[in-house]
Amino acid sequence: MTVPRMTRRFPVDRCSPSTVESTTDLLSVEEPLLVLINGKPYATLMRTPGDDAALVAGFLLAESLLTQPADLLALRFAEHPTSQEAHVELPPALAAQVPAARSIYLSSSCGVCGRATIDDLLDRLAPIPPLPLDPAFLLTLPPKLTAAQQQFPLTGGVHAAALFTPLGELIDIAEDVGRHNALDKLIGRAFLAGRLPLHHHILVMSSRASFDILQKAALAGIPAVATLGASSSLAASLATQAGLALYCFLRPGSVVAIRSDG
Amino acid sequence: MTVPRMTRRFPVDRCSPSTVESTTDLLSVEEPLLVLINGKPYATLMRTPGDDAALVAGFLLAESLLTQPADLLALRFAEHPTSQEAHVELPPALAAQVPAARSIYLSSSCGVCGRATIDDLLDRLAPIPPLPLDPAFLLTLPPKLTAAQQQFPLTGGVHAAALFTPLGELIDIAEDVGRHNALDKLIGRAFLAGRLPLHHHILVMSSRASFDILQKAALAGIPAVATLGASSSLAASLATQAGLALYCFLRPGSVVAIRSDG
Repeated sequence: MTVPRMTRRFPVDRCSPSTVESTTDLLSVEEPLLVLINGKPYATLMRTPGDDAALVAGFLLAESLLTQPADLLALRFAEHPTSQEAHVELPPALAAQVPAARSIYLSSSCGVCGRATIDDLLDRLAPIPPLPLDPAFLLTLPPKLTAAQQQFPLTGGVHAAALFTPLGELIDIAEDVGRHNALDKLIGRAFLAGRLPLHHHILVMSSRASFDILQKAALAGIPAVATLGASSSLAASLATQAGLALYCFLRPGSVVAIRSDG
Repeated sequence: MTVPRMTRRFPVDRCSPSTVESTTDLLSVEEPLLVLINGKPYATLMRTPGDDAALVAGFLLAESLLTQPADLLALRFAEHPTSQEAHVELPPALAAQVPAARSIYLSSSCGVCGRATIDDLLDRLAPIPPLPLDPAFLLTLPPKLTAAQQQFPLTGGVHAAALFTPLGELIDIAEDVGRHNALDKLIGRAFLAGRLPLHHHILVMSSRASFDILQKAALAGIPAVATLGASSSLAASLATQAGLALYCFLRPGSVVAIRSDG
């Protein structure tokens, strides 16, 4: 099996106020992957190659196009000179519900798809039992996340999504130039392994919390989300209305817990 | 005129290892805006309210759905209990070229739309004259960007896109939870004011450089892009092939200039 290139080396000049050093630098790869469902182009994901089966499974799950691993009748990849393709085969009944011609490009940081209102989402969500957490416990997670990031030290240009147990054990981690891709990969792996819903797990993201991140977490049954960056208003509203615990600005010494809707 | 709310206050707990302080915190607003073209739903932008006319104009420009301010026959906004809408009127000839039913949600950080390959983009690009810059000059820009950010100090949760002259004068700045929205607002304002192409300007972004950012900059004729974060491989390839100067990891003391394609 070929290991996909997650980084690529570029000639660069490193400049300070008084010096210029010509050298090379590793950049995180961003490449389009065209997803076709039962032969029809559906979406193009701008992602870092490396875990495409999980990415596609997680993406389709977040799109509510499938609900169990058995729905994924087949998934094969094709490489053409100018494009990389993921060919998905869904049962005819599910394929018939796929919106026509969602043939657009999703950037390396786009994740909201299909329905963006909280009410729509709440209607589709199964109940998620709360997972009480001690904030002091959360503060132990950032160093573990940092230690587990393999791509970030190379390029400084990828986000990480990681699953922890309430005992602080790292279960899995995924990295990608797009935060939503990293999360799709993480959830996609658990989905393909039949481990959903993730009721006893904490999601830690290196990014900020936007609507799409909370949406994907909620659909995977994750009861607690902690992000190193800020939360948007819609992410906070979604979390509080769906009963997810949301912690932002997670640092080794402090964290901000959203208490209720604004 | 009502000033749109760019921030919203939420009850939060600020936690340290030994203390919990119940207080409130300002979060950056993320809200959907449905864009309709000649009456048909086209896309939903997850954005921070505040400069929607520029956002919509810049977005449609980056989508290559219009090329001059006169193409925008009308733009009006409607507020419904459950949705905010931007009604765009394009000339029939342009409206006829709008892809059918691109009625999907774009997250607060999605920006690549329609065509994601470099070759497609290069075919559409007008030549951009190079703008030689001294790296030592670039190092003077981050403090100016920081000083001009109005929303970031409030929430820590918005990106900024700013235009500078080669003399270091800040021309304009836009902020949004999505980096591509911030750039659409910035370019949209210049577009509506008839100031495109932006051949003599430097774009500084608080974010990383992804394909969508370079695509939008190139379509606006911007010859130099500097980002505080990393660059993706595709952003670097696009910049070098389109003749744009790309600088990443811009800090007060250092910057990395991409020299050529990897």
